[in-house]
Amino acid sequence: MNLKWDSQGLIPAVVQDATTRQVLMVAYMNAESLQKTLEMGETVFWSRSRGELWHKGATSGNTQTVREILVDCDEDTLLILVDPAGPACHTGAVTCFFRTLEDITDAVK
Amino acid sequence: MNLKWDSQGLIPAVVQDATTRQVLMVAYMNAESLQKTLEMGETVFWSRSRGELWHKGATSGNTQTVREILVDCDEDTLLILVDPAGPACHTGAVTCFFRTLEDITDAVK
Repeated sequence: MNLKWDSQGLIPAVVQDATTRQVLMVAYMNAESLQKTLEMGETVFWSRSRGELWHKGATSGNTQTVREILVDCDEDTLLILVDPAGPACHTGAVTCFFRTLEDITDAVK
Repeated sequence: MNLKWDSQGLIPAVVQDATTRQVLMVAYMNAESLQKTLEMGETVFWSRSRGELWHKGATSGNTQTVREILVDCDEDTLLILVDPAGPACHTGAVTCFFRTLEDITDAVK
């Protein structure tokens, strides 16, 4: 049985802290980045903006050690439980989800 | 500041149980479904397969009462904390993420 990659060969991956259960970020994987994640035991994504493999924490040191990878019922989304070495967000926040919708004005347009 | 809708006017929404912190599902919202979610206080998605608004639990009774909506740093993903009235998954499982990647053979192809 195969994963359902989208038209660009990607699958969204929700990253959750295995201990605190906090949702840290959502990023995208292609088959190669998933393969590298399995090989390294650390998250490797496909950066859609840079168009290249992105080993999370390679420069910042904030790697994410993979504990478990779950797949949803229709096999088009991954949930990755990790032990993070540091903050997930480039802003330095523990999680990329550090604002509420109310913090963002004019959200629904 | 606006949310970053994708080329199809959608944004992925991670749904997490506000109490157990379990990640329940990932679905997609367009502006109308987000507006309805805010109005009703229950999750309403855009069904990509059926091409219509999808009030979660409208037929099954397994609605999701919204506690909080968070936005990630680049404003292209939502995290919705909910109190679920029942299982999130159409299979009857509490969460759609009930299998590991290892359960799925030939995953990386």
